[in-house]
Amino acid sequence: MNVNVLRLDHRLKRDTRITTHVCLTARAFGASKIYLAGEEDNKLMENVRDTASRWGGNFEIEHTDAYMGVINAWKDNGGKVVHLTMYGSQAHEVAPEIREDGSDILIIVGGSKVPGKVYKAADWNVSVTTQPHSEVSSLAVFQHLLMDGKEFDLEFENPVFEVIPTAHGKNVNIHDENR
Amino acid sequence: MNVNVLRLDHRLKRDTRITTHVCLTARAFGASKIYLAGEEDNKLMENVRDTASRWGGNFEIEHTDAYMGVINAWKDNGGKVVHLTMYGSQAHEVAPEIREDGSDILIIVGGSKVPGKVYKAADWNVSVTTQPHSEVSSLAVFQHLLMDGKEFDLEFENPVFEVIPTAHGKNVNIHDENR
Repeated sequence: MNVNVLRLDHRLKRDTRITTHVCLTARAFGASKIYLAGEEDNKLMENVRDTASRWGGNFEIEHTDAYMGVINAWKDNGGKVVHLTMYGSQAHEVAPEIREDGSDILIIVGGSKVPGKVYKAADWNVSVTTQPHSEVSSLAVFQHLLMDGKEFDLEFENPVFEVIPTAHGKNVNIHDENR
Repeated sequence: MNVNVLRLDHRLKRDTRITTHVCLTARAFGASKIYLAGEEDNKLMENVRDTASRWGGNFEIEHTDAYMGVINAWKDNGGKVVHLTMYGSQAHEVAPEIREDGSDILIIVGGSKVPGKVYKAADWNVSVTTQPHSEVSSLAVFQHLLMDGKEFDLEFENPVFEVIPTAHGKNVNIHDENR
């Protein structure tokens, strides 16, 4: 199952940190690519690419001016679409069905106002708790449920930095050969 | 099990949105209170209180000038402390032990630089994936693991707004009697 994320309605400055966290969350929890709609933010994309290259794997980031085109192309290629919204079906109730469906999944993370056509285009509108919190936490918990916890075993190829989990202190392998 | 969150090193302006998302995530995933260390941000606290009162429950938010005092008081009262850090033990490996321990849990969410005394004071230093992403996603996924998914069944008392999960569109009960 290939997972991509589409972040709608990015705004320069105001959304920089949140969108950066959305990007890094997408990557850490197993997405191979994120599309950013809204205002083009080359500096943010460069920062995410830098982080991704230091920590390994092949995560991609791309700006799009036409997010409905991304959604429609995904569906034309046989993929399915999940839209995260606090109004949707409960994540823990639909995640097994989405996982077992086996299709590639495009996860849409909203901006301030999501038009009705996104709700309609989604195969699943999914809510992570029915409470207000954050697109970052919604994405992380949904990806965790979608991956059924397998994100904890992901390996990111050719990292410069590799954390070795440890109960106290910090233990980081530095692979200078991957710089 | 009572869960509180301690957010270190909040900075006015720069961290406003991320810290707000940390607060709302803490609440949505079952914490009863968050302490904010760092710069005092009354506007942020007022906004979080407003949101919490509209969505129900009894979530508390409090600024502290002495976060080590919060940690030590928690421990003196028999509670245990989890510090979320990308260098810690893997979340999925230690979450069952922490849950089964049954103690009240204070979850510490770091700022830019976390001093060694926080690592030392923690009963568990815990990493949510070993990759860089976000304190918001780390907190959400750790709380999800700690709650063993029970956060999806939480009820928030006396809400004005109550989302009824729905596959398409929006369905919100508005309880004017709770305004």
